[in-house]
Amino acid sequence: MSIVVRGIARTDGALVDGLAACGVSTVHEAQGRTNLLDPALRPIYSGARIAGTAVTVSVAPGDNWMIHVAVEQCQPGDLLVVAPTSPSEAGYFGDLLATSVQARGVRGLVIDAGCRDVADLTEMQFPVWSRHVAAYGTVKETLGSVNVGLVCAGQWVEPGDVVVADDDGVVVVPRAAAEQVLLAARAREEKEAAARERYARGELGLDVNDMRGRLERAGLTYVDAKDLA
Amino acid sequence: MSIVVRGIARTDGALVDGLAACGVSTVHEAQGRTNLLDPALRPIYSGARIAGTAVTVSVAPGDNWMIHVAVEQCQPGDLLVVAPTSPSEAGYFGDLLATSVQARGVRGLVIDAGCRDVADLTEMQFPVWSRHVAAYGTVKETLGSVNVGLVCAGQWVEPGDVVVADDDGVVVVPRAAAEQVLLAARAREEKEAAARERYARGELGLDVNDMRGRLERAGLTYVDAKDLA
Amino acid sequence: MSIVVRGIARTDGALVDGLAACGVSTVHEAQGRTNLLDPALRPIYSGARIAGTAVTVSVAPGDNWMIHVAVEQCQPGDLLVVAPTSPSEAGYFGDLLATSVQARGVRGLVIDAGCRDVADLTEMQFPVWSRHVAAYGTVKETLGSVNVGLVCAGQWVEPGDVVVADDDGVVVVPRAAAEQVLLAARAREEKEAAARERYARGELGLDVNDMRGRLERAGLTYVDAKDLA
Amino acid sequence: MSIVVRGIARTDGALVDGLAACGVSTVHEAQGRTNLLDPALRPIYSGARIAGTAVTVSVAPGDNWMIHVAVEQCQPGDLLVVAPTSPSEAGYFGDLLATSVQARGVRGLVIDAGCRDVADLTEMQFPVWSRHVAAYGTVKETLGSVNVGLVCAGQWVEPGDVVVADDDGVVVVPRAAAEQVLLAARAREEKEAAARERYARGELGLDVNDMRGRLERAGLTYVDAKDLA
Amino acid sequence: MSIVVRGIARTDGALVDGLAACGVSTVHEAQGRTNLLDPALRPIYSGARIAGTAVTVSVAPGDNWMIHVAVEQCQPGDLLVVAPTSPSEAGYFGDLLATSVQARGVRGLVIDAGCRDVADLTEMQFPVWSRHVAAYGTVKETLGSVNVGLVCAGQWVEPGDVVVADDDGVVVVPRAAAEQVLLAARAREEKEAAARERYARGELGLDVNDMRGRLERAGLTYVDAKDLA
Amino acid sequence: MSIVVRGIARTDGALVDGLAACGVSTVHEAQGRTNLLDPALRPIYSGARIAGTAVTVSVAPGDNWMIHVAVEQCQPGDLLVVAPTSPSEAGYFGDLLATSVQARGVRGLVIDAGCRDVADLTEMQFPVWSRHVAAYGTVKETLGSVNVGLVCAGQWVEPGDVVVADDDGVVVVPRAAAEQVLLAARAREEKEAAARERYARGELGLDVNDMRGRLERAGLTYVDAKDLA
Repeated sequence: MSIVVRGIARTDGALVDGLAACGVSTVHEAQGRTNLLDPALRPIYSGARIAGTAVTVSVAPGDNWMIHVAVEQCQPGDLLVVAPTSPSEAGYFGDLLATSVQARGVRGLVIDAGCRDVADLTEMQFPVWSRHVAAYGTVKETLGSVNVGLVCAGQWVEPGDVVVADDDGVVVVPRAAAEQVLLAARAREEKEAAARERYARGELGLDVNDMRGRLERAGLTYVDAKDLA
Repeated sequence: MSIVVRGIARTDGALVDGLAACGVSTVHEAQGRTNLLDPALRPIYSGARIAGTAVTVSVAPGDNWMIHVAVEQCQPGDLLVVAPTSPSEAGYFGDLLATSVQARGVRGLVIDAGCRDVADLTEMQFPVWSRHVAAYGTVKETLGSVNVGLVCAGQWVEPGDVVVADDDGVVVVPRAAAEQVLLAARAREEKEAAARERYARGELGLDVNDMRGRLERAGLTYVDAKDLA
Repeated sequence: MSIVVRGIARTDGALVDGLAACGVSTVHEAQGRTNLLDPALRPIYSGARIAGTAVTVSVAPGDNWMIHVAVEQCQPGDLLVVAPTSPSEAGYFGDLLATSVQARGVRGLVIDAGCRDVADLTEMQFPVWSRHVAAYGTVKETLGSVNVGLVCAGQWVEPGDVVVADDDGVVVVPRAAAEQVLLAARAREEKEAAARERYARGELGLDVNDMRGRLERAGLTYVDAKDLA
Repeated sequence: MSIVVRGIARTDGALVDGLAACGVSTVHEAQGRTNLLDPALRPIYSGARIAGTAVTVSVAPGDNWMIHVAVEQCQPGDLLVVAPTSPSEAGYFGDLLATSVQARGVRGLVIDAGCRDVADLTEMQFPVWSRHVAAYGTVKETLGSVNVGLVCAGQWVEPGDVVVADDDGVVVVPRAAAEQVLLAARAREEKEAAARERYARGELGLDVNDMRGRLERAGLTYVDAKDLA
Repeated sequence: MSIVVRGIARTDGALVDGLAACGVSTVHEAQGRTNLLDPALRPIYSGARIAGTAVTVSVAPGDNWMIHVAVEQCQPGDLLVVAPTSPSEAGYFGDLLATSVQARGVRGLVIDAGCRDVADLTEMQFPVWSRHVAAYGTVKETLGSVNVGLVCAGQWVEPGDVVVADDDGVVVVPRAAAEQVLLAARAREEKEAAARERYARGELGLDVNDMRGRLERAGLTYVDAKDLA
Repeated sequence: MSIVVRGIARTDGALVDGLAACGVSTVHEAQGRTNLLDPALRPIYSGARIAGTAVTVSVAPGDNWMIHVAVEQCQPGDLLVVAPTSPSEAGYFGDLLATSVQARGVRGLVIDAGCRDVADLTEMQFPVWSRHVAAYGTVKETLGSVNVGLVCAGQWVEPGDVVVADDDGVVVVPRAAAEQVLLAARAREEKEAAARERYARGELGLDVNDMRGRLERAGLTYVDAKDLA
């Protein structure tokens, strides 16, 4: 059955923005190295770091009809998450749809398929993470669903979940876990900031992380090059 | 037999420039979603949008001898289209050849193989769409042909055809169809410009494209999230 | 056995810098088209051209412990070369390790695995050539070795060898061959500079390289398009 | 948290066997072209067609510890479904584990990672669908979970669901839908059997499916080759 | 425009069968190493070696309607050649269509897309060379053309051309060239048969092909292992 | 410099045969999970398990001249290891060369490039592990070397080393390590045989490997499905 779910619950905006600031790698670590989308999804341009609340769109292969349906369900702060029911390299999304969703405050698109008009999207600074860049378009013949749970690029995404995306990739944070993941991510950031300062001063990871004893016990051996000849 | 065809007929320059302005995705749509080269051909740098008249070069795998032969056949406004008779990842083209063809007014290169010196080519702003970036060069041992019809990255290209290339990929427009395709592309652009304006104002694709009735007849169902629990 | 070799012999710095200036494609040609790493290793950002003396790190799949060990062995002018004993897509290296090695004067990283924090690394202008960009991190459980000869992305690298990397890829120059390769590379550059000037003036490769007679003997035939109809 | 869920509900065995008999392509069609795992999962040998109730195993990359844990939860008629939390090409499963699970009546393995000892598995006729064949093994260091819902090769699988696998690929049927999907699959088979008979007699799909009128209305034109010259 | 061309000229059957007997590699060599389809097309089972006269089918992505149209144009000895206008991984062809075309004497299918029911096709011994094996089917919504020239997997195929396919891949022989290519292929076979006999007796290629002088002139040097230490 | 090294030292034949019997996965484990060639090398047919002493051949891309030179250096029990200096998909090796080397007692071929005539090779039962199957042949223009150390598919191979290959892949065992690796492999086999027997009787890996305590300490939790609802 093809359904559109209206009025979904969304993760609190402050949590979303907090997670965006942490970035994908930190968030991924903070939730136990889970929920990272397939690294084959790449940004169409470098330098964007965003997070948004997921509006999910299940589409037929080569058919972008339901994206038009989904736009109506979008609010400022949302991020579109699109997954075809079978693999498709087609360009589902271009500058017209970007204009439409940008007008509604959507922050970006994550799509396990193709995207086109990438020069325009770059100029508009509308960020997209996609599996393909492809000029060939789609038809509008087959229904799908909006705001249902779905698998996108290997991870389960529920509507209203947080999706964080940057140059490292895309990670999803379940709505119910967002607060706790943000806390863990910030704790990790603080710890890393302290370590970074020590590294910048020239201290070694061996000392910062107190690794020497464990390495020795594991059997690591140091030899001098001149003794090998 | 290895031949070089001189004095090929070329598509009119105004048509070529018109098609360049429309870009790959629009031109591809305008000719019925045909003639798009394999999306595996990617630009070596972002932001170029060009079109040119094809000078075609059929080369042996790992051998760029015929590109030197082809240069002599080039005129301002041309674009080199190079395809090996068997797959090759070698770097057929670098800054020296780019200097040579740029001096003759060639606008770019589309090659179903490898390219090198990409930093230099970027600095020269000589755009290349290639399947590979690879430093290993080629030999000059085996003949091929220049200005014969050939398949490049999955599409048939005749010398003198228009080749349009931008960040979305590469599309070929047969010379005889160029005028009609340009008309169709411009008509599409006008229609899209009107739609873009409406989208930018916040109108929905559902309304701009009058989709609601058809969606309803197809059986699309709206439900409220609170009724699903 | 897991060993760390201290006090390796390094290629002379002037040779290293000379090779950096020549770039990957020229150096690759200059040593008889050998020693190019798999072109699947790509830079995380465009425009870097570096060379350094290799500090090699053999790591277990999904485990970056030995990179921490290797940092202590690094000197200014070095370049880290990391290869897993089995394929891994994990992100072995991020901004913390980059801070650490940059503080020690390391010029870059070549890794036959994944890298993360690529936006930070770009901002730090710490160049990395990697097979993957991937947010998922590594553990620190299994020993490996530092400064042993190893295969990285298809080529044999000895500690102290020169590794040259730019937008065309990565090439290794054995320490013992560095001087001779630099001479050959510079000779090639001079020859190319002369040719480039002639190409820029509009001379043809056919004449610059004196190819016409050989092409004719090989049987190349010129025909006029109007005679084909 | 790492958990092992005991005593899962399983789909009725008769439904499972019925779905096995229908095969992957038919079952996939019968549930609206959904729930097909990534076609990159391929059988290690040809000719197997099985279905089983899923015992799911979420594993760390390069770590097969939890498969040993999962074996205890297996019953005759089950099928192991293994997915790493990050991509891994390692060989998680070989002849020892196969001996163990075969002794417990497990029908096969679907794994979004690597498998080894494929010659032995073929001789044992223990079928495996995997993304990789790879000899390098795994460690036993990190916990995961058994019999939790997870994404395997792009599809959501719950413990107790039916997994059907043959030379065409792998499809999952949710437990709650199994009866209805089986009915739909059988209806499809009957319809296809009737069509097959007509095709075998030489009737055309154009007539069997009554397509001629619709083709004509769509504008299909017949021309004779001799009129094209 | 969508057209179906009836009454195409076909290559003489004796030539077709002669080329089948020579096999793909020999035929490919015999026509100057041209016209080999992309090696990514692989047979669904090993051991078939066939040739047939091409009935070409240009299809929309994810749409197999025109294959049904094409069947009516098939004669005994034909081979279907199917290419989508944009890439598609869908399973265009299964056991029903195979039953239909086998009833009409079609010898096999070459398709630059997906195929399904491969176990059934193997049992029927209906050989298929495809880019993908995929269970998800196609729709019947968009017209295409039958018996027009088209590019399939990188090569131009005209209706009536000979297509030869075996475990080494697929090659197309233009109708006008079939006789000459067959002669060249047979000449090559004879020469190879003579060489094979000498090789089987233990003679070396160095002598059979009289290579020693040329190797020496090229500078090949023999050294004894004991002199290298 | 292009050299052919004659009279290489070879690993003792009994060690070679012993390693063949153990197979690739066991040998790989027995030498600390090292020296496995890229799993992208696949056998052209299933079921072969061989080992031989390496005769190494470094070839130019698309050029098989040196394989003819290498044949003369082969002895019964050898195995050819061929690696191009730059990537090549060409078919370097077919039934003629197979006839020649089989006549000299060569047991198989491992090649990081393409192979052709695979149906013939299968019939001859001459096993090949290659990266590609491709019909297009090679030229004989450029020298290379025979019996020098080289990288093949990511691993360093010295002439006379043992190469073991089966359906799981290809692994190299350095000559000096062969005896010790064989001992370790046999020890592993014995241990596995004992475990296999226990598994076959229905014992669990949890008990055979005494894992329960460690799992509990790591925090693994068991829950009953009925308690989750």
